[in-house]
Amino acid sequence: MSNLHQNALVFDGLIISNWDRSVFEDMRKGGLSGANCTVSVWEDFKGTVANIARMKRLIRDNGDLLALARNTADIEQAKQDGKTAIVLGFQNAHAFEDQLGYIEAFHDMGVRVVQLCYNTQNLIGTGCYERDGGLSGYGHEVVAEMNRVGIMIDLSHVGAKTSDEAIRASKKPVTYSHCLPAGLKKHPRNKSDTQLKFIADQGGFIGVTMFPPFLKRGIDATVEDYVQALDYVVNLVGEDCVGIGTDFTQGYGQAFFDWLTHDKGVHRRLTEFGVVQNPQGIRTIGEMPNLTAAMERARWPARKITKVMGRNWLRVFNEVWSV
Amino acid sequence: MSNLHQNALVFDGLIISNWDRSVFEDMRKGGLSGANCTVSVWEDFKGTVANIARMKRLIRDNGDLLALARNTADIEQAKQDGKTAIVLGFQNAHAFEDQLGYIEAFHDMGVRVVQLCYNTQNLIGTGCYERDGGLSGYGHEVVAEMNRVGIMIDLSHVGAKTSDEAIRASKKPVTYSHCLPAGLKKHPRNKSDTQLKFIADQGGFIGVTMFPPFLKRGIDATVEDYVQALDYVVNLVGEDCVGIGTDFTQGYGQAFFDWLTHDKGVHRRLTEFGVVQNPQGIRTIGEMPNLTAAMERARWPARKITKVMGRNWLRVFNEVWSV
Repeated sequence: MSNLHQNALVFDGLIISNWDRSVFEDMRKGGLSGANCTVSVWEDFKGTVANIARMKRLIRDNGDLLALARNTADIEQAKQDGKTAIVLGFQNAHAFEDQLGYIEAFHDMGVRVVQLCYNTQNLIGTGCYERDGGLSGYGHEVVAEMNRVGIMIDLSHVGAKTSDEAIRASKKPVTYSHCLPAGLKKHPRNKSDTQLKFIADQGGFIGVTMFPPFLKRGIDATVEDYVQALDYVVNLVGEDCVGIGTDFTQGYGQAFFDWLTHDKGVHRRLTEFGVVQNPQGIRTIGEMPNLTAAMERARWPARKITKVMGRNWLRVFNEVWSV
Repeated sequence: MSNLHQNALVFDGLIISNWDRSVFEDMRKGGLSGANCTVSVWEDFKGTVANIARMKRLIRDNGDLLALARNTADIEQAKQDGKTAIVLGFQNAHAFEDQLGYIEAFHDMGVRVVQLCYNTQNLIGTGCYERDGGLSGYGHEVVAEMNRVGIMIDLSHVGAKTSDEAIRASKKPVTYSHCLPAGLKKHPRNKSDTQLKFIADQGGFIGVTMFPPFLKRGIDATVEDYVQALDYVVNLVGEDCVGIGTDFTQGYGQAFFDWLTHDKGVHRRLTEFGVVQNPQGIRTIGEMPNLTAAMERARWPARKITKVMGRNWLRVFNEVWSV
């Protein structure tokens, strides 16, 4: 592991792995000081509270490796303690149901990043795999309440129109926490240069993913392709509002991907991932040091590496989470 | 208002009033620095989260009068700021449903006192208005989890056997937050000398109520009767583990009492309160200074008044809430 990686505060803007000790050990091996960890996709309010309880139990039971992050100081502390700080995140605001009051309840429980929609329509807006009528009236109230309590709005899987309106409605920075540029590959999940520039112009943040179905070279990609995608976005919007959002799905198999790719987990199929195999060199979370190494090989200056590997995320979280 | 009342930190161990600004203004008039405020009786998990959201909205909207208390420092701060600190409390653990994980979720939301049962049987044990088979197996797990996260166990409306077993099971002080001695009046809700001594011997706490149906002189009682009841308990267990728990129901009418006195709010009738009118001199929360004055007339030393009016509650909360 290079000194640069070892000293950097590494933050991953999205992981949705099959939470267990082997994943947490790999997070330590990879030198992660924190990650936005998905605890809700299709689950309703009660199902999501149960998922959070399960994650908190895992954090307690693996207290030698993990800590819960309620603020950026907790992530800095995890870095110092050689632990990984778990940021609780949702990939769907479905769990808010029809109760604005649930948003503060989830914030109380520690939730700090929530994607407004996952692929399809919900009470708030529409995902990126169907016709998108934009942010609903209730969606505007949800955005205001998330701003108020300090939960970051994620738009990665959200449709273009809903995203545009949410970016304009939010009084705080919002994020595409795990996306790739459509400039490298056309895909419903990838974002156009215009979209990337717009969110950045509005003070927002871009986490770049390496999820193979959205990469130009798919499962033939290597860690160099990931660095190329990161560079594409940095060249477009500058080096201060870009981070990583790997979308590691470590420990999951076909049944999980089937659940993700059907509306509500069980209805019509929305997309097909094919084989999910991360880029060579960074197939597992534990290989994260190879990403820093690839950046060094690409002659990124240390300043840029440190920012993109985690410092940028902490800066924007601090802005959004402070109330 | 006497100097003693003005300088004392006054804490009421139970209020279940009809929460609105007029009640909060009366809390200020009464010089309350804090109160355990009921936000759940028969409601399920989701209904209770909605009640908590409503209370937090009220705390925000009446921020000139109120603050949310998550620890005893928040109550001390409220005293300094001339505000009343709202401690969120339940009179029934029904809202925990069958999910131990909900207990930490409620703690996250700020809940700090929960009564195990309200009058009848639930998953945990049995209330004081029916045959009581004791603390269930799940009840033992609930007690341990409440100990772990730092929520105080309340047993006021709990049956004798369940109470006895909960007192033994709990590793932290538990409370009858609002009860009267059976030595002054026989009633299913009143506690025998043996019960009062037992909870105190185990490090527990007794909040004395003045709810008219349980008072010897009922609606003919005066604030002097309340002081007499307090003295009865203090003489039994000493002056360090006794406080007030008025059970003010200010702003509520017959429909609310009907809801309270039927199992689950709607099934068979369990008891009949008759006319609810608090003792003369302390009919409303705003008249709380009269209680301190009555204690002074009864020649209570200032030390004893200060403890019983609030300091004792803060001491025991500090023990239970610290984790």
